[in-house]
Amino acid sequence: MAMVCLSDFEAYAKKYLPKITWDYFAAGADECTTRDENILAYKRIRFRPRMLRDVSVMDIRTKILGSEISFPVGIAPTGFHQLAWPDGEKSTARAARAMDTCYIASTYSTCSLEEISAAAPGGLRWFQLYIHRNRAASQQLVQRAEAAGFRGLVLTADLPYTGKRRDDVRNGFRLPPHMKVKNLEGAFEVCKMSPSFHSLLDPSVTWNDIHWLRSLTCLPIIIKGILTREDAELAVRHGVQGIIVSNHGGRQLDEGPATIDALVEVVEAVQGRVEVYVDGGIRKGSDVLKALALGAKCVFVGRPALWGLAYKGEEGLQDVLRILQDEFRLSMALAG
Amino acid sequence: MAMVCLSDFEAYAKKYLPKITWDYFAAGADECTTRDENILAYKRIRFRPRMLRDVSVMDIRTKILGSEISFPVGIAPTGFHQLAWPDGEKSTARAARAMDTCYIASTYSTCSLEEISAAAPGGLRWFQLYIHRNRAASQQLVQRAEAAGFRGLVLTADLPYTGKRRDDVRNGFRLPPHMKVKNLEGAFEVCKMSPSFHSLLDPSVTWNDIHWLRSLTCLPIIIKGILTREDAELAVRHGVQGIIVSNHGGRQLDEGPATIDALVEVVEAVQGRVEVYVDGGIRKGSDVLKALALGAKCVFVGRPALWGLAYKGEEGLQDVLRILQDEFRLSMALAG
Amino acid sequence: MAMVCLSDFEAYAKKYLPKITWDYFAAGADECTTRDENILAYKRIRFRPRMLRDVSVMDIRTKILGSEISFPVGIAPTGFHQLAWPDGEKSTARAARAMDTCYIASTYSTCSLEEISAAAPGGLRWFQLYIHRNRAASQQLVQRAEAAGFRGLVLTADLPYTGKRRDDVRNGFRLPPHMKVKNLEGAFEVCKMSPSFHSLLDPSVTWNDIHWLRSLTCLPIIIKGILTREDAELAVRHGVQGIIVSNHGGRQLDEGPATIDALVEVVEAVQGRVEVYVDGGIRKGSDVLKALALGAKCVFVGRPALWGLAYKGEEGLQDVLRILQDEFRLSMALAG
Amino acid sequence: MAMVCLSDFEAYAKKYLPKITWDYFAAGADECTTRDENILAYKRIRFRPRMLRDVSVMDIRTKILGSEISFPVGIAPTGFHQLAWPDGEKSTARAARAMDTCYIASTYSTCSLEEISAAAPGGLRWFQLYIHRNRAASQQLVQRAEAAGFRGLVLTADLPYTGKRRDDVRNGFRLPPHMKVKNLEGAFEVCKMSPSFHSLLDPSVTWNDIHWLRSLTCLPIIIKGILTREDAELAVRHGVQGIIVSNHGGRQLDEGPATIDALVEVVEAVQGRVEVYVDGGIRKGSDVLKALALGAKCVFVGRPALWGLAYKGEEGLQDVLRILQDEFRLSMALAG
Repeated sequence: MAMVCLSDFEAYAKKYLPKITWDYFAAGADECTTRDENILAYKRIRFRPRMLRDVSVMDIRTKILGSEISFPVGIAPTGFHQLAWPDGEKSTARAARAMDTCYIASTYSTCSLEEISAAAPGGLRWFQLYIHRNRAASQQLVQRAEAAGFRGLVLTADLPYTGKRRDDVRNGFRLPPHMKVKNLEGAFEVCKMSPSFHSLLDPSVTWNDIHWLRSLTCLPIIIKGILTREDAELAVRHGVQGIIVSNHGGRQLDEGPATIDALVEVVEAVQGRVEVYVDGGIRKGSDVLKALALGAKCVFVGRPALWGLAYKGEEGLQDVLRILQDEFRLSMALAG
Repeated sequence: MAMVCLSDFEAYAKKYLPKITWDYFAAGADECTTRDENILAYKRIRFRPRMLRDVSVMDIRTKILGSEISFPVGIAPTGFHQLAWPDGEKSTARAARAMDTCYIASTYSTCSLEEISAAAPGGLRWFQLYIHRNRAASQQLVQRAEAAGFRGLVLTADLPYTGKRRDDVRNGFRLPPHMKVKNLEGAFEVCKMSPSFHSLLDPSVTWNDIHWLRSLTCLPIIIKGILTREDAELAVRHGVQGIIVSNHGGRQLDEGPATIDALVEVVEAVQGRVEVYVDGGIRKGSDVLKALALGAKCVFVGRPALWGLAYKGEEGLQDVLRILQDEFRLSMALAG
Repeated sequence: MAMVCLSDFEAYAKKYLPKITWDYFAAGADECTTRDENILAYKRIRFRPRMLRDVSVMDIRTKILGSEISFPVGIAPTGFHQLAWPDGEKSTARAARAMDTCYIASTYSTCSLEEISAAAPGGLRWFQLYIHRNRAASQQLVQRAEAAGFRGLVLTADLPYTGKRRDDVRNGFRLPPHMKVKNLEGAFEVCKMSPSFHSLLDPSVTWNDIHWLRSLTCLPIIIKGILTREDAELAVRHGVQGIIVSNHGGRQLDEGPATIDALVEVVEAVQGRVEVYVDGGIRKGSDVLKALALGAKCVFVGRPALWGLAYKGEEGLQDVLRILQDEFRLSMALAG
Repeated sequence: MAMVCLSDFEAYAKKYLPKITWDYFAAGADECTTRDENILAYKRIRFRPRMLRDVSVMDIRTKILGSEISFPVGIAPTGFHQLAWPDGEKSTARAARAMDTCYIASTYSTCSLEEISAAAPGGLRWFQLYIHRNRAASQQLVQRAEAAGFRGLVLTADLPYTGKRRDDVRNGFRLPPHMKVKNLEGAFEVCKMSPSFHSLLDPSVTWNDIHWLRSLTCLPIIIKGILTREDAELAVRHGVQGIIVSNHGGRQLDEGPATIDALVEVVEAVQGRVEVYVDGGIRKGSDVLKALALGAKCVFVGRPALWGLAYKGEEGLQDVLRILQDEFRLSMALAG
């Protein structure tokens, strides 16, 4: 089977991954309305293509927080990459570096952040962070990320509790015994990493904790999970360097807005004071172009990266990114 | 099979109830447009989720007409609970008390209101009432409800005649011989309780009859079946204490508004002068949150309660309410 | 199988009529968009139901052009009733008289207008007319209709040529040899009554021909096929007594407006100067109520009458009308 | 099987053409959204039919750039007609002449433009042109077209690169060895005529190249692929004689506007200064009428012409055109 577009990788992953793993990656909250809306909302946006422009040379490189990447698509934080490929996040890091783009490693990685760093020295990486009830643990993670050469901290703001993903509840999803949430070893008992209402995360976190986080590190702080102009304004006022418009792939609150729709109001509120990114629903190069046209500096892909890993590890993920890159370049040319 | 969400109970009930019973519970008028719209209208409403608010402690208790309930979901009046579970409304009453919420018992119960009362002493209950051609019979019911400790009277206003539920006509639905409409025994011949155009109810009832009802009792009067601002205004002027925005689960006039849509205009018209509730289409905790955000003080669930009864009687109904409660709390947290 | 609603008669007719006949009755032009829109447009209209009004006594009788009918539903002109039932239009006439309503007999009847008249003396009937290239033939028909006691002339304005009904072309639809277009015997060669682009009708007819028609008869003239305010205004100015908003059941120009949508603008233009009726898409009593609420004096049903005939002739058609009557009365009561 | 409407020809072609050929003709870019939108957008447009107008005589002849054609439907440029019928573009040319309409021959024909010309002397033909990196080759084509009696040059503006047609990539589509892109023989190596990102075409072409093209020929220049008012204005300013509103049948940039929607803004911008045509999505005579009512001087059909060829070559294509002509005339009559 030829791998022509991202849907081909999705079909492959659905066919070859264990059902419990596929369900976990695919899961959306409740009735998956928002997960699906993320994709449908892109389809509702129409181009106004312009003709007879010189598109023989196109520069698709860009910079995020000062670092250059080869094209405006990075890898969003997702957990448990060993479920998709034995080498897990180490493969992800290598693929991202090979494609010269940014990889946001998740706290819930099955490789430690030091292992990730060692797998692809010199790659551009940010580290995704939750704030735990045990603040010392969070502080330790920040310091380890800084020491391991991560160049940004991505604070996830939309998970005070885990969303209700029905299939995961039915499947009784939890990590297989031979995998570990390596970043949290020692600090927490790992076997609790199943989706449950009560968790190790602190649901009392507020905007003031941004100041606490700022006091711990000189890395740029990017906040992930913003969907309204009000919160975008608060984020800017609390001194973050970037905003990722995200609804956690539709895995948290169901029936909120699609991210591409929310992007418009966030960009308008921010007015260029910080960089704005978006994730969720990107499936084609033309989706990237739409997000950029609506004000995003860069997009991040979550599930497509997992499909690429499931297909052929590092190589498969590169295939996914290369297809997006080619499609993005072609869309730019055809849209003038 | 794990019971994860209310749809699971629906699937169970559809599978295990006799077809004629399932059809009766599921029935909507004519083409069931309004029945289905009740659900679809919720799906069209989008949250604007806010982040980084302290959601570690949430109080979901509320008061309706001065009585505290553990969360803003009560049980709407529906008939013939013995069709779902042998103990009928006695189980319903026990489950409602166990979950510390309000149960509106129907005139068309298969247990008498005294039996319902005795089954769960101390529970918060309202009694649902029609006005019969034989006013003495209605008066008697009011007095019995008051004596049995019911704390509110819910007057159903949308059933001058029974709606045309095609499947019930096809099935020739009527109560099995061993079940009785106990509240009406003596007063009426019970075997007439099949859906038919002509009935025992008085189609000449008007707003003036509210005064008559008021003269009979000091219980608060809640009117059920209001869908327009005009009728909401009339209800307030005629001195009711509460309004339930309802279209009888889409079983009466087809192609009227969804209740959640009608709620908006009723709340606007009422301007806080009386409490407003809503029933119809509630299937998830997020639906409850939407109704409250749009001005309802509390919601009531009809068919989901019957599915819970059909699953495991009192225990099954508690399961249903507990799931709604958990989902409601989670939605509140995730929406900030 | 219980006949509970009009769809039951439709299902029966589809099952028991010869395919070529079913296809002819069901046919719409081109892609049948307008045929289906006629029905869908009713579903988009929502009631605002009012409660607690005295609906114990309801008068559903009405008058059209001065003649009283038992409820505001008449029988639209459709051709070839012998295809549905051996007695053809004679059965139709008897059923209409039994139900005390108006029957518009088609020029393309398989019984002559004199036979129709004789079958149900005293019934309220109008005669539907085309203007033929051979004006003498049309004049003769007018005079025969007047002589036979028809009380109105319905001029069909939307058939200068026959619409393209794909299934009829595929089936090579024509009348079986033992049936005749009795009204035209003698005047025309009957075997030409197959749908074809060129026909016996005169495509050069204009508004001026209304004057010619007026000069032939003192019967009221009703024009059928008006869909715009501009044509409604012209109709009034040319002195017609009534307008039937109609798109010929979606059998002529595809992708025009649904009749219930066109009704609104026609009623607004006419401002009560003449009576306005509507046909197309009526399938439930609530549709009748909607049409009346939007300004129609009466509605006419076409295909449902044929289904009733196909079910049990005169008796089946009465069943159809009785169901519509019951549903209409119930809708009025439930809508307040 | 009777061939009653264009869909019948589509079904025939899908059934009898080799899959790889069918896929190539049917292909749209990416998810084929725009390809399908071209058709859906016509369905959203509603007529306002007028009655009682004299439609006994209708003149459907029109003129494009001064040449009379029998009705306002021409044949859009599509490639590789030998894939549909052995005689290829020679059959197309004969059918177009027989029906007295305009045929736009594609650069990517499997017959040379001289062969096309010789096959149907005297027919009205335009030649479709790309601008190649090798300008001498393009210049040569212009001169050959002029010499061969083509009466207009159609410059395709929307193909700086080939759109991503997933099925063609999967199928590895390329011309079979015994077919040649005859117009380019000698100038280019023909076997490269497979859809690929890099091509022989020049992606650096801009509006200035219109002047270069103008300097080569006195034939009228028609620009094809315009979708916005801005580009329409530029086209007029750069001196073209006509504009074809087109999105290349949805084969280039996906998720741009449907052509019938884009037509409205182009016509408004152009204000009659040049002739405007449209292609894409025409499947019925009523679509032609809609396009004309919205300001197009003439429409062009692409895929339907190929289906006609696949059915019976020259004769099949005439069938397709004749059906469109009959339907167009009937629609005009029924719409008044």
